[in-house]
Amino acid sequence: MVTIDFAKGDGIVPVIIQDYDTNDVLMLAYMNQEAWDKTLSTGKVHYYSRSRNRLWLKGETSGHTQDVKAVYIDCDTDTILIKIHQHGGAACHEGYRSCFFRERNGGDNWRVIGERVFDPETVYGKN
Amino acid sequence: MVTIDFAKGDGIVPVIIQDYDTNDVLMLAYMNQEAWDKTLSTGKVHYYSRSRNRLWLKGETSGHTQDVKAVYIDCDTDTILIKIHQHGGAACHEGYRSCFFRERNGGDNWRVIGERVFDPETVYGKN
Repeated sequence: MVTIDFAKGDGIVPVIIQDYDTNDVLMLAYMNQEAWDKTLSTGKVHYYSRSRNRLWLKGETSGHTQDVKAVYIDCDTDTILIKIHQHGGAACHEGYRSCFFRERNGGDNWRVIGERVFDPETVYGKN
Repeated sequence: MVTIDFAKGDGIVPVIIQDYDTNDVLMLAYMNQEAWDKTLSTGKVHYYSRSRNRLWLKGETSGHTQDVKAVYIDCDTDTILIKIHQHGGAACHEGYRSCFFRERNGGDNWRVIGERVFDPETVYGKN
């Protein structure tokens, strides 16, 4: 019997999102019990937004939803890993395929290694 | 200029650990500023243990250290992704290659899909 340990993180757990086809890590976000239940019942990934303090269907603004393909739980049952199909090709709100589009290049130097799939201004508007 | 946002998580950030060769996600743990600095200066992954409230060199008991191969930061600079080489072949303290060794199999059913590389009792002792 596996019970997700939401208590350890004050009601939320981190969720790693991985591309089902390429195994690229696309993003990390958080779920509460409601987001978890909604994700399982709909097959579309839902998160809990810590900054907006509410349930969040990924893609609700952009249309770039995430279809659940496989779900994993870690040894301590306090982190979830979900493999997904990303509609629109980009998980990052900045238009990159992955939120991890910058690689450390020694010292304080980072370089952009990701590819931009869409222009955020077009998808989200200018505000 | 990239500055890691330790403040958002009260001094710690989640760190996703991915196998450099296979792209399998191996574990998630946390770093504070000290763990981050130690990781970069030594090339061996160090974490901050929330339960033990101290710096933690991964592998300090088991010898199964993690060599840093590549480091990435996400769009919000509040999550780190590190690709590593895992000494001993297993990142999980339960002896599996990955901490995510259970896959959801519908409803409340989960099945073990990971392979066990070592016996935790042998590596960590029986207590």
